Parts: sequence; C-alpha cells; structure tokens
Amino acid sequence: MSSASVTRAVEFPAGHRYHRPDWDDARNESTFGPCFRSPAHGHNYRVEVTVRGRIDPDTGMVVDLAELDRLLRERVVEPMDHAFLNDLPEFRDGWIPTTENIARAVWERLSAALVSSELVLVRVLEDRNLWADYEGD
Amino acid sequence: MSSASVTRAVEFPAGHRYHRPDWDDARNESTFGPCFRSPAHGHNYRVEVTVRGRIDPDTGMVVDLAELDRLLRERVVEPMDHAFLNDLPEFRDGWIPTTENIARAVWERLSAALVSSELVLVRVLEDRNLWADYEGD
Amino acid sequence: MSSASVTRAVEFPAGHRYHRPDWDDARNESTFGPCFRSPAHGHNYRVEVTVRGRIDPDTGMVVDLAELDRLLRERVVEPMDHAFLNDLPEFRDGWIPTTENIARAVWERLSAALVSSELVLVRVLEDRNLWADYEGD
Amino acid sequence: MSSASVTRAVEFPAGHRYHRPDWDDARNESTFGPCFRSPAHGHNYRVEVTVRGRIDPDTGMVVDLAELDRLLRERVVEPMDHAFLNDLPEFRDGWIPTTENIARAVWERLSAALVSSELVLVRVLEDRNLWADYEGD
Amino acid sequence: MSSASVTRAVEFPAGHRYHRPDWDDARNESTFGPCFRSPAHGHNYRVEVTVRGRIDPDTGMVVDLAELDRLLRERVVEPMDHAFLNDLPEFRDGWIPTTENIARAVWERLSAALVSSELVLVRVLEDRNLWADYEGD
Amino acid sequence: MSSASVTRAVEFPAGHRYHRPDWDDARNESTFGPCFRSPAHGHNYRVEVTVRGRIDPDTGMVVDLAELDRLLRERVVEPMDHAFLNDLPEFRDGWIPTTENIARAVWERLSAALVSSELVLVRVLEDRNLWADYEGD
Repeated sequence: MSSASVTRAVEFPAGHRYHRPDWDDARNESTFGPCFRSPAHGHNYRVEVTVRGRIDPDTGMVVDLAELDRLLRERVVEPMDHAFLNDLPEFRDGWIPTTENIARAVWERLSAALVSSELVLVRVLEDRNLWADYEGD
Repeated sequence: MSSASVTRAVEFPAGHRYHRPDWDDARNESTFGPCFRSPAHGHNYRVEVTVRGRIDPDTGMVVDLAELDRLLRERVVEPMDHAFLNDLPEFRDGWIPTTENIARAVWERLSAALVSSELVLVRVLEDRNLWADYEGD
Repeated sequence: MSSASVTRAVEFPAGHRYHRPDWDDARNESTFGPCFRSPAHGHNYRVEVTVRGRIDPDTGMVVDLAELDRLLRERVVEPMDHAFLNDLPEFRDGWIPTTENIARAVWERLSAALVSSELVLVRVLEDRNLWADYEGD
Repeated sequence: MSSASVTRAVEFPAGHRYHRPDWDDARNESTFGPCFRSPAHGHNYRVEVTVRGRIDPDTGMVVDLAELDRLLRERVVEPMDHAFLNDLPEFRDGWIPTTENIARAVWERLSAALVSSELVLVRVLEDRNLWADYEGD
Repeated sequence: MSSASVTRAVEFPAGHRYHRPDWDDARNESTFGPCFRSPAHGHNYRVEVTVRGRIDPDTGMVVDLAELDRLLRERVVEPMDHAFLNDLPEFRDGWIPTTENIARAVWERLSAALVSSELVLVRVLEDRNLWADYEGD
Repeated sequence: MSSASVTRAVEFPAGHRYHRPDWDDARNESTFGPCFRSPAHGHNYRVEVTVRGRIDPDTGMVVDLAELDRLLRERVVEPMDHAFLNDLPEFRDGWIPTTENIARAVWERLSAALVSSELVLVRVLEDRNLWADYEGD
C-alpha cells in the first residue's frame, strides 16, 4: 500500500505583541525589540498543515480534505483571523505568541481531532522570510 | 529624450484597527466588521512607489535610487515598521488607516521630498488579494 | 476630495477548450494548438478587479468591500469555480473562452451591478506568465 | 564525500475529473464534490522533483541537470501538458488523478530512468494551497 | 469592436556591470556603488511585454501568441539568456545596462517586428522589488 | 521540552561562471553549457537557513534571531551580495560555484559560529525552479 503526505495551506491576518508582564520594560525591549511595542502589530500569517497516510485505492486520497478543511476553519482560521493572538487561551498564561509557539498551538488544536490521517508537520510563516516548523513533542 | 518609470517596493509588518470614536460599537462593527476588533490586528504591508522621468544618458537611470531608498527608509519604513498605524500623525485626527488612506499618507510623505524625478503612483498592498492605488489629488 | 482605486483578487480552478464547431479539426488545431485537445484542460485562474472612486472621509474606503466581495462571489466565483467555462452563457454562442474573453465576461457580469464605485479594470491571469486586461468598450 | 540534494521544478496546465464509473452519480458527487463535474476542470500544476547524491568534485553537481531536464520533458511535461490526465495510462484502470496519485505517477515515470542520482521526493502542487509528497513505496 | 491588452512574461538569468570607461574608478564607484564591481554580477530578469488590439471575433485573441512567443524567444530570450548584457549591441556604445535601458532595448527589439497588435508596455524586473516600465518615446 | 525549527531567508544578487581552467574550452562548454560563457552571468539568490532547538519557555524562541541575522549578514550577505562568487575563498581552489557548492559554503560559514541552536539545513535557490539542500557531511 502506497503512502503519501498532503499539505493544505490557509492564510489570515492577525495581531500580536511580545512582552512578559513579569519583566520590566527595559528587559522586554532588549529581548523583543520592536515586537514589544504597544499595543500591537501583526502579520499575514500562512499556516501549512501536513498529514500523512496510505493512499485510499478507491478515492486516491490520503485524507478526507473536507474534514481537514473543516478542522482548519473551526480550530485555526475562525479563532485566529483578525484576532489579537495574545488573547487566545494558549497565550494567556505566559506563552509568547512567537511563530514557534503559534505552530505548537496549531498542532495541539488539530492533532487530537484528526481521525483519517496522521498530522506530521505544522509550518507557520510570519512572512516570506521567516517561518517555524513543529512536528510534535 | 526617452522617459521611463521605475518602481521600488518595500515591505514591513504593522498593526491597525478600524474604529471611529464618534460612532457607537454597533455602528463600528457593522461598518468595519472584524477590522474593528480591539486592540489590533495587522498585516505584512507592501508599498510600491513609482517615479517617472527621462533616462539620464550618462547613468541610464531615471531616479537616484540611493535618494529614493533613503526617503523610503526615513519617511515610510522607519515610522511604519512594527508600528500601530493609528498612532501616526495622519491617522490621529479621524482618518481610518485603510489601504487607501495609507497609500495617500505615503504619497504625502514622499511627493514633496523627491527632487530628481516625479512621483506618479503609490500602491499599498494589505495582502496579495487587496491593494489600493493613489496618484495624487 | 481625494480619489483612489482598489483592487480585489480572487482565484479558482476551471476548465476550458478552444474550438470552433464551424471549423474542421485541421484548422482548429493549427489555430489553437494544444488548447484544442478534447475534452478539456484547465488553469488556476486569478481575477483582479479594480474599482475607482473618492475616498469616503468617514470610512476611508472607496468601495463597500463587502458589496464587491458579494458580487465577485455570486457573479464570478460561484459560476466559474470548478466549471467548464465553455458551458457558461457567454461562451455558448461562439465566443472562445480565451483570457481576453473571460476578462470581458467578468466585466459584463460586474459593471452594471456595482453601485458605490466605478469598475475601471478587469485583469484575468491564466497563469503567472499570461494575462489579459479589459477596460470596457 | 559531501552529499546534497537538488530540486528541479516544472509547470504545466492540465485537466482532470474525479469519478468512479462503478459508483452512481450521487456517491461520486458526495465523495468528490465539484471535482466530479463533467467534462473536466483543470489546474496549473507544479511538479518539484528532488534527487540526492554526492557532489561531484569536478563539476560541483549531484546530478547531470541536462539528463534530469530531458527526463522531465519527455516523461512528464510532454505527456501531461494541456492533457486530460484521466486519459494517461496510469489513470485508465481506476486510479483517480488526485494530487497524491499524480505524484506517484511522476515517481514511477522517473525513478527507474534516473541513473546518475537517486530520486528521493516528488512534490505535486495543484495550486499554491494544496500539494502532495510521494517518496516511493 | 472590443479591445483588450495581453501581457506575456519570460524569465532568464543574465550578467551586467555598471561602469563608464570615460570616468575614473572613484566616480564610477560613487555613482554606481556595488554595481560597479568587476567583472560582473547578475539577476534573474523577468520581462513582461504588453500588446493591445481588438479581440478577434473568431479566435477571441488580440494577438497571435505563437508569433509573440517566437519574437520574444528570438529577439529577447536567446540573445539575453545567460549573457553578459554589456556585450549586447545596445550597450556597447555607452548605454549602461540599467533596468530602464534594458526595457528600452526590449522595446526596440520588438516594436517594429510586431504586426498583428501594438506594443504598449515593456516592464523589466531586476528582482521582485525593483522594475522599470518603458512605453516608447 | 518542546523543540521546533526556524528558517530565516535572505536574498541577494551575485555573479558566477562555471569553468575549469584545467579543461579546454570544448570540454568546459559541453559540460557546463551556457554557464561557461565569459565573463559571467548571475542570479537573484535566495538562501534559507534552518536551525533547530528547544523552544525557550521564557521567550518562545528556539534561536536568538538577532544573532542569526547578524551571522547571516556578516558571513553570507555582505561577502556575497553583488559579488562574483568565483572570487570567494571557497571557489578559488577549484570548487565550481554551483548551487550545491554555494549551499555547502553557506553551511561552513554558519555552522561553527552558531551557538544558541543547531544548524540543520541550508537551502540555496538559484531561481524559483532550481535549488540545492545541504545538511552537513
């Protein structure tokens, strides 16, 4: 049985800010630079989700794309589109919404819910010159 | 004497929010939709600036690109990069920082300062599927 | 009052074929080359629609983007997405669905319906290396 | 001896349709959605082929690029460009021409013929937001 | 009769260097900066050629694309691809191969030869952030 | 502790030429084709550098991006931007400046200097249709 992986990408704008309330302004600024500025800046994020599985001999597909698209819409795009990412549950308790941590958050939101195939990679691009890959713990 | 136009593009992330303090929340939300959300979201903006002039027979150029790059850096990128655009002077008195108005602001910041060539177009792209063109009053 | 133009882009795949039933196969093939092949090939089309108007001083916008998006969805994307373009009404009576004629068809579908701003350009891209611009009769 | 991998990409438009003649229309439509529509739609496909080998100390190359380009032209681009993919031998016996199966077909067409380096990945992109990777059985 | 314009793009790498033999090194360097460095650097050039004409009611086309592609191949891509642009006839007598002058050279090479439609714009992109437009004298 | 990888991309134009002084012209031309032409052609290179490490729970980052950007600027962009790559130390002793060897050179320039994270991949793109990946010996 042949296996393959399929990647689906979505894009949305969002806002974020890097700051730790337990640090003073000087330390925040020297660590986070212009990402510390109040109240927020943002990006056109691009999220690429890769799943892997055997190619179904009847449909030629490794994933029910309608299911993957629904999960992406409900668990990633709707809560993150035009949102201030620091307000998401994952980032309320001290996680900074860096590209790395957004990739981890997308992984957690999708991996348990996917049933027809296995999540193997989440790539989040902040812009065309910076991105993070997360492949689980 | 041959004329040509030259376009230079720069990119930077920024934050913005659409809201009118003289309107109540319901009117702001029905007019501006998710762009009204507090405190801000943002985009990877792309600004394309077109100048026109005769091709200098000695240098083969219609613009001193070093001058144009310096103006773009000092008057556009440095004040707007990682900034909350609503805080810029142009947007403090009620202009909403829409793509149209950002294009107009870039035009005003550059047109008077350019000496070696004529500004003919400012294009601002909010993302790859939405942009505004401003060509002066 | 300042004016500006705004461009909105949408993308969708579709199929098409170039052939004239009143021509024999040899003439169809010599004129249309591989685009004549039966039953069809297709492209990921990109449609860029430019409207122009004054910048509304209250909203900072030249067009009600929700209205433009609704028109694009109802009159362009829904009838053309995953469609065989030769089956559209415009192409049933002998118009070949070339990039030029698709641009003209999009213009006709949108220009009369737009009320808050003026349609000034429709650009249709068959791929990143070929596109047509239509600006009305 | 250092090793590296090299990726070559080609692009071409093609047509396809998802349907199983052994299923009735209702099952085809519920499974394949708009991809079931007759006669066909299509895409601008992009095929990225990755080969791996040691860097030849004389030429600095891991693959004879002229050989790879010839194989890609003869075995992939010429038979698939402007073609209706369902008519290819691989898809006549019930394989649906999904992105996954097209990647597998490209792999089979190239892997045996490559002599100077090893094929390690075939990526096929249906559009910029959906692609499949195939790395062999 | 409806008119439209069509744009065709081609891409190729080439080398160039900015220097005037009648200037000393100091003046060349202060004027041309790193573009003066010997022997050469280069770019992946992109040339976009726009022609305009009426849409032929039989074919739906404003230009014989096979003719335009042949002219582009013979008069632009073959002489410029992997070439050192300073060696082209246009640049032997003192024209610097700037983006502006390359656009003018492409215009001269194509405008007289095109018979089925009118050349209206040549755009040459040195990279994604710098390009020149030439529309004739 | 969660790990992730981060990729940073930079772009610059450069020149190069493929030729071995110990080979005659005929052998150079048959091996290297148009890349042998004198004095040089060039490309807009894109270099993508991937580092891997644990996500720092305080900053949400796997790499000090300021450090990575400084290394990229000092060791890659400044020596290679607008340079004739054959003149770099790596290519003086007979390495041909192919995409594969440029990737190896970037790896050598960065891997020893990176302290806060581990270099895992260097990708160098000569253009959008050809690139090389190097992951160390």
